[in-house]
Amino acid sequence: MSKTEEEVKVTEERKPSVKVIPLGGLEQIGMNITAFEYGDSIIVVDCGLAFPEDDMLGVDLVIPDITYLKDNADRVKGILITHGHEDHIGALPYILKQLPVPVYATKLTMGIIDNKLAEHGIENLVRKKVVNFGQHINLGQFRVEFIRTNHSIADAAAFAIYSPAGVIVHTGDFKVDYTPVYGDSIDLQRFAQIGKNGVLALMCDSTNAERPGFTPSESTVGETFDKIFSEHMKTRIIIATFASNVDRVQQIINSADKYGRKVVVEGRSMVGIIETAQKLGYLKIPDNTLIETEQLSNYPAEKTVIITTGSQGESVAALSRMACGTHRKISIKPRDTVIFSSHPIPGNEKAVSKVMNELYGQGADVIFQDTHVSGHACQEEIKLIYSLVQPKYAIPVHGEMRHLKAQARLAENLGIDRKNIFVIQSGDVLELSEDRARVTGKVPVGNIFVDGLGVGDVGNVVLRDRQHLAEDGIFIVVVAMDGEGRIVSGPDVVSRGFVYVRESDELLDEAREISGEVLNRCLERGIEDWNRMKNAMKEELSDFFWKKTRRRPMILPIIMEVS
Amino acid sequence: MSKTEEEVKVTEERKPSVKVIPLGGLEQIGMNITAFEYGDSIIVVDCGLAFPEDDMLGVDLVIPDITYLKDNADRVKGILITHGHEDHIGALPYILKQLPVPVYATKLTMGIIDNKLAEHGIENLVRKKVVNFGQHINLGQFRVEFIRTNHSIADAAAFAIYSPAGVIVHTGDFKVDYTPVYGDSIDLQRFAQIGKNGVLALMCDSTNAERPGFTPSESTVGETFDKIFSEHMKTRIIIATFASNVDRVQQIINSADKYGRKVVVEGRSMVGIIETAQKLGYLKIPDNTLIETEQLSNYPAEKTVIITTGSQGESVAALSRMACGTHRKISIKPRDTVIFSSHPIPGNEKAVSKVMNELYGQGADVIFQDTHVSGHACQEEIKLIYSLVQPKYAIPVHGEMRHLKAQARLAENLGIDRKNIFVIQSGDVLELSEDRARVTGKVPVGNIFVDGLGVGDVGNVVLRDRQHLAEDGIFIVVVAMDGEGRIVSGPDVVSRGFVYVRESDELLDEAREISGEVLNRCLERGIEDWNRMKNAMKEELSDFFWKKTRRRPMILPIIMEVS
Repeated sequence: MSKTEEEVKVTEERKPSVKVIPLGGLEQIGMNITAFEYGDSIIVVDCGLAFPEDDMLGVDLVIPDITYLKDNADRVKGILITHGHEDHIGALPYILKQLPVPVYATKLTMGIIDNKLAEHGIENLVRKKVVNFGQHINLGQFRVEFIRTNHSIADAAAFAIYSPAGVIVHTGDFKVDYTPVYGDSIDLQRFAQIGKNGVLALMCDSTNAERPGFTPSESTVGETFDKIFSEHMKTRIIIATFASNVDRVQQIINSADKYGRKVVVEGRSMVGIIETAQKLGYLKIPDNTLIETEQLSNYPAEKTVIITTGSQGESVAALSRMACGTHRKISIKPRDTVIFSSHPIPGNEKAVSKVMNELYGQGADVIFQDTHVSGHACQEEIKLIYSLVQPKYAIPVHGEMRHLKAQARLAENLGIDRKNIFVIQSGDVLELSEDRARVTGKVPVGNIFVDGLGVGDVGNVVLRDRQHLAEDGIFIVVVAMDGEGRIVSGPDVVSRGFVYVRESDELLDEAREISGEVLNRCLERGIEDWNRMKNAMKEELSDFFWKKTRRRPMILPIIMEVS
Repeated sequence: MSKTEEEVKVTEERKPSVKVIPLGGLEQIGMNITAFEYGDSIIVVDCGLAFPEDDMLGVDLVIPDITYLKDNADRVKGILITHGHEDHIGALPYILKQLPVPVYATKLTMGIIDNKLAEHGIENLVRKKVVNFGQHINLGQFRVEFIRTNHSIADAAAFAIYSPAGVIVHTGDFKVDYTPVYGDSIDLQRFAQIGKNGVLALMCDSTNAERPGFTPSESTVGETFDKIFSEHMKTRIIIATFASNVDRVQQIINSADKYGRKVVVEGRSMVGIIETAQKLGYLKIPDNTLIETEQLSNYPAEKTVIITTGSQGESVAALSRMACGTHRKISIKPRDTVIFSSHPIPGNEKAVSKVMNELYGQGADVIFQDTHVSGHACQEEIKLIYSLVQPKYAIPVHGEMRHLKAQARLAENLGIDRKNIFVIQSGDVLELSEDRARVTGKVPVGNIFVDGLGVGDVGNVVLRDRQHLAEDGIFIVVVAMDGEGRIVSGPDVVSRGFVYVRESDELLDEAREISGEVLNRCLERGIEDWNRMKNAMKEELSDFFWKKTRRRPMILPIIMEVS
């Protein structure tokens, strides 16, 4: 019955392996999308967008490059969505146009996806399936179980991904909330059960992996609202929060109801999500509580609450418009109490401060402490999940390098072998089996920029030009020449964003003269190649401007041929 | 001996008043400059710059508009500087060129000013006087006393400004540090004495007025350094901090000396300040501690410390270049311990995170907690100063509206009458006397943009153009016409930063055709005015591009006349 060593080795080498291929989300917060591959089957978890960085000038959105999925389109069985935030669903309308596969999500998540697809006019072209917690979905060689979690949006799911190579648990974005506002607490028992049966790998949310302790329950914010409402019985209350945080909105409505205030909802995205959540039963609004903005004047200020978008200082959002006095229907009054029920997302600090300053300037009182809790697990919650799931391999996800590394340190402290912890990058092909795990390849990944209607037509060249133009503007010199290389008009010069033209006559005149001299010098030397002439002008003008202004505008020579 | 009521009233009305005129620093952190005016005398406290906001594209620095001071140049007696930070001294080289008045400052502050003036080649054109703490300077109708405070740079001063109308105490930037690293603790006794004699107004630092409690002593950071050094005996240590925080540098050197490490200083501004501080006796460096970067390889990594600039994620600073592998002399090694001895200034959070991620990516360990304390007073310290000074009027300074309002609330809680608290704006003329205080006028104020060698030649028009160019790029259409209004060449089109030209042939061809059609239509209708032709092209092209791309590039039609 005993096998030779050789046979054992062969058997071991044949242990099946599953591939984990993140296509985004590991270099930044945002654009979460991960492919799982076994044999002829590929499934995709999440399909998010990222918001442009400061240096992506004029870009509206960033979506993932899915070349790998398109190249293997016949094997892609479907996209499973963990929850309804933009960084998990935002790229769906763009990706589904290129890769028409079915989408699986829980009820509220699908409601939000529906709205999004409708905006793009493709709601009826997509196959969709609403999934309940505990339900299993078969997709080729994979089976995926939806597990209830808690997050800053209701109906968030973790996935247990069953494959012949083993089980991978993907937490999605989560926190452990023992007293959630809507629905049940995260299904810790199920995490434990799956863990007990043996888990190959855990892919766990790293967002708050640098923060010690536990994230407080969403319901603590409701207690704070009650306290603030009881202390501000004589002023109007305006509360800014994330449109998608339905539980937060529910708690504001509860406090308003308790203290006899009418509620107005401002901001397009807020109105949209509230409608969807209410329709699907995720939000309970007592009768006669909601009123229209136009009805505000029918009630005393201290009997009203305005729930609004703009908690991140977004300049086009309702709160910012109120703060700077450009909102068409609502203006800030002295003694209004404005609550920021949010924390600035990194990068938005100054914008938020600006709105606060404007509100203070209008005489409002601003409250921004203790009225927000995170939707992501802190260190103790991450440790809890690891202890329940007890994976062989740890793959920290959802975060910048610093967050992934912080989770890796936690995992190591929990006893997971350092060589079994994988801080990988988007595009890495991580192959996992019971025997071993390693990165075995790379697939193409990247940022596709969406600018207006254009998807992918703004690339590095265009962005570099925009950067250049933004920095020092443009200087254009135009000249018309006849067929025999004689200047028949110009050079004329035009500049934009470079110097204040009305006060720079001298500089521009000199630049015009230099352009003419360069051209004549070229002609005298018998140079007839327009590109050489243009380059000569560029060089000389660039030196001239640098010397005179220490600026480097984009220099654009244009030569026209007049026959 | 008794006066009639009438007489009393007249006497009271004649009580002298002093004017406080902030010319910057009240709408933002930065660009601090305040004029004080009594009769024929004007003195100026601080002369700082601001760093450009995100929407000030291509701008290097922002300095205050001093039209008011120039219009009253004959009355300006001098500029008094509280301490050597850029937001208090940075505009001096620019302002002194327009307003050559004497400058008064403490020793280290003047050393830093000297370096700055030397960079602009005007060190010998400026009258300067180094002032000791306790010393009084007579400037026309004013007398100014320099009082020792503590801050994140040594030699920081508060001012007691004596005028016939009363005493104004200006704290400068301060904290209360009972155990400072260099020199003595803030002169609380003197604040108390001056307060006891009666103070008209207190102008107090508001930066941390939203923060409860006390700012910890700078020396607590030294204890943390010792702890970190003792825990990282086997790795190289790299510490990023503010160049100007000489006490911080001193403590790093102390720890290095204690643990037998050699010290390298990296970053031009860091090297400059350390030289000045050492020369003036504010920094004690044990012999054989400092080494050159080139000597690093002569010592084991664990016996070295690198002090570097770049703690704010500045892309050109030494640390950023190390992190992304472009530093010419130092590269990050796995297991290096990198300490951010700093806190991100609002707006720099993402840049700092980026550098941290790159450091982690190179295998370094990053420490960013507990190795920094603020240089500004928190609420308890602000209350202490108010209680010592007991001013009649409170004028919160140095902060955004939210910070000024926070200090105003503190002052009110301390019993200062609400009507005696003035949250004013730059340009307000606040007139103060024992009888009354009120804003009696406005002087011109504003941001002057410095871009390269240009001071003030970049204004709103240029910035608006840069914004437009940054957002959607530029589209240029050129056409040559003869004297009789016939098109003899073109239209030709060129674009930059708009669409990727190589893949947009069709769009650009169509735009060219449209331009031609518009021109011909104009000519057919007998329109000969080039401006009307240009506007017609602009309109039609703008609509066309919006429909096709949802973008609005800057459209620039150029018509050349060929005779």
